[in-house]
Amino acid sequence: MVNTAPNPSNTATHSAPPSDSRQRVGSFLKGLQDSICQGLEQLDGGKSFHEDSWEREEGGGGRSRVMKAGNLLEQGGVNFSEVWGKDLPPSILVQRPEAAGHGFYATGTSMVLHPHNPYIPTVHLNYRYFEAGPVWWFGGGIDLTPYYPFLEDVKHFHQTLKAACDSHHPDYYPTFKRWCDEYFYLKHRQETRGVGGVFFDYQDGLSQLYQGPDPTGVAAAHSESVGSLARSWEEIFAFVQDCGNAFLPAYLPIAERRRETPYSERERDFQLYRRGRYVEFNLVYDRGTIFGLQTKGRIESVLMSLPPMVRWEYSFAPNANTPEAELYETFLKPQDWLGIEHR
Amino acid sequence: MVNTAPNPSNTATHSAPPSDSRQRVGSFLKGLQDSICQGLEQLDGGKSFHEDSWEREEGGGGRSRVMKAGNLLEQGGVNFSEVWGKDLPPSILVQRPEAAGHGFYATGTSMVLHPHNPYIPTVHLNYRYFEAGPVWWFGGGIDLTPYYPFLEDVKHFHQTLKAACDSHHPDYYPTFKRWCDEYFYLKHRQETRGVGGVFFDYQDGLSQLYQGPDPTGVAAAHSESVGSLARSWEEIFAFVQDCGNAFLPAYLPIAERRRETPYSERERDFQLYRRGRYVEFNLVYDRGTIFGLQTKGRIESVLMSLPPMVRWEYSFAPNANTPEAELYETFLKPQDWLGIEHR
Repeated sequence: MVNTAPNPSNTATHSAPPSDSRQRVGSFLKGLQDSICQGLEQLDGGKSFHEDSWEREEGGGGRSRVMKAGNLLEQGGVNFSEVWGKDLPPSILVQRPEAAGHGFYATGTSMVLHPHNPYIPTVHLNYRYFEAGPVWWFGGGIDLTPYYPFLEDVKHFHQTLKAACDSHHPDYYPTFKRWCDEYFYLKHRQETRGVGGVFFDYQDGLSQLYQGPDPTGVAAAHSESVGSLARSWEEIFAFVQDCGNAFLPAYLPIAERRRETPYSERERDFQLYRRGRYVEFNLVYDRGTIFGLQTKGRIESVLMSLPPMVRWEYSFAPNANTPEAELYETFLKPQDWLGIEHR
Repeated sequence: MVNTAPNPSNTATHSAPPSDSRQRVGSFLKGLQDSICQGLEQLDGGKSFHEDSWEREEGGGGRSRVMKAGNLLEQGGVNFSEVWGKDLPPSILVQRPEAAGHGFYATGTSMVLHPHNPYIPTVHLNYRYFEAGPVWWFGGGIDLTPYYPFLEDVKHFHQTLKAACDSHHPDYYPTFKRWCDEYFYLKHRQETRGVGGVFFDYQDGLSQLYQGPDPTGVAAAHSESVGSLARSWEEIFAFVQDCGNAFLPAYLPIAERRRETPYSERERDFQLYRRGRYVEFNLVYDRGTIFGLQTKGRIESVLMSLPPMVRWEYSFAPNANTPEAELYETFLKPQDWLGIEHR
C-alpha cells in the first residue's frame, strides 16, 4: 500500500506540516485504535474485536474492528482508515475551496459503542486529519448519548474532556463543547443527539476556532470566546493526541459504574427507540458517513456505527414525570453541564 | 385552512392547469387515501387506522393514518398532505428553476406497509402534484420490496401496473419501470431496494418522459423508448388516477397468498436486517423524505415510513444456495420481470 497523494507545499497563508506529518498522524491514530480496543476488551471481559483489513481501489485502506454480542457491548466498532485520491468530495470543497484540483490524503479513527444495558450510554469518537494541496486540517471529537442519564456521569465525561482541552488553551473546551452541541443536533427533531462532549473541524492553525454554522444561536450568544488563534501544526496535533487519549478515562468509569444496573423491557424498548435517533443523525447529517458514501468507502466500515437493533414508533412521547421524560426535558438540550448542581 | 399560494398563470411554454386543478387533485389524493385504508383494514381483518390531523405553520396540513400491531400489518402508514408556502426547497429548484421566486402548492398521498410475515413484501406508494409559478407537474409511483420473493408475485405486481400504464401510452410502463429501478437504487450497496414497480417525476406534459439521472446506464441502454410526448394536464391526471387505483389490485392478492406461510426466527431476522436497507434508502436518498425535512414537514408523518423494528449486522452476507442468497442474486437487480420464465 503506497501513499501516492501529492504532499502539500508551503504557501503564504498556511504553514507547511512537517515532512513526516502523514506517517506521524497515521501512527498515532492506529495506536489510538489499538489502545481503545485493548481498553474495551478489558472492560467487556468476554469477547474480542474481530479485525478486517481492507484496501480501497482509488487508494489507501484501513482496518475495521468489530465486537458483536460481547458481555457489555451489544456491538462496538473501531475503525482506522488512511485513504488518498484525486479529488475531495464536493461537501468538503465547499468548506475548503483551496483544496480544489489537488489530490488529498485523509486518515481517521472512529468508534461507536452500543452497550446492551440501557443505563450505559452509547458513545462516539472520531479523530481525522486531511492534507490537500496547500491546506491541512484536523477534526473530530467525542460525544456521549445516554438513554437513562446520570448527572454525575455527564459531569465526569465533560470534566475529563475539559482537562484535556485546558492543558492546551482555555478557549478550547467552551468553544468545542458548544460546537459539539451544534453539530450533534437533530434539526428535524429539535433535539441534541445526547449530552455532547467536544467537536471541532478545520483546525489548521489559521482559522477561527469555531467554523460551524449556528442554527440555534448557541455560538453567537457566546461569541466572545469564539476567537482566532495562530497555532502551529505541532500544537494542534498535540491537542488532538490528548483528546484521543482522554476517551478511555472519560468513558470506562461510567460503563463500570452502570454495568450491573438491572433493567427491564421498558428500558430496553426505550433504548431501542432512542437508537433510531442515532441512525437518523448518522444517515442524514453526519459528515463522516457522508464522506464515506461520497468517496465510495468500504460500506460495512462506514455504516459500522449503526446499531444492531433499532425501533421506530410513530408519535411516541414519554409520559410526564418519568425518567424518559427527564431525558428529553433536561438532557437533550445544550446545557452547561459543569455548572449544573447535583440534585 | 385556506390555500393562499398564488395560482400559476399560463405561459408560452407550459399549458395552464384547469382553474380547479388543486381541488381536483387534492380530492382524488384524499379519496385514494380513503380507499387504500379501507382496503387495508379489510385485508388486516383486525386493527383500524388511527388518524392524526395536523396543520403546518407555513401553510397547509394533512391527515396521517397509522395502523400499529395489526393482524397482518406490523405497521402501516398512509399519509395525505396539502401544503403551500413561499419557496420550494433548493433540491427541487435545481430541477425546476422556473419555479424560483414563486409560491408553491404541493399535495401528495404516500404509504408504506411493513407486514409481520417476512413472506409478505413491504410496499410503498406515493403520488404527488406541484404547482409553482409557471410550472406544474405530477410525480410518484409504486414499488415492491420482498424479503422472500416469489416470481409469480413479482409478475402479478408488474403486470397490474403495466395494464394501468398501457391504457394511457405504450411507452409509460417500460420508461417508468426503468426509472423506478434507477430511483430505488442504493448506490452504496449496489442493490435495488426491491423488485421495483413504476416511478416518474416532473411529468408536466412538455418534458421528456424520463427525467432521471442514469448512474447504472439502464436508461441510456434503452433510450429508444425514452421519448418526448406532448400531453395535456387532463391526460396526465387521468394516468395518475389509474396508477393510484392500481395499488390495491396489485398488492392485496400477494398479501392474501402469503399471509399464512409459516416462518421461523431465521426469516424474521433476515426481514429485520433487510428493513435496514429501507431506512438507508429513505434517509439518504428519498426525495419525499428530504422534501419533508427541508420544508419542516410534520416529522412523525415524514418518518412514518421507517420500520417498527430493524437490525443492522456488520458484514452480513447470505450463505450460498439459500433463499436469502437468491434474493440478492436474482431479485435485487433490475430485471425484465414480465419477460422472465417461471422456474
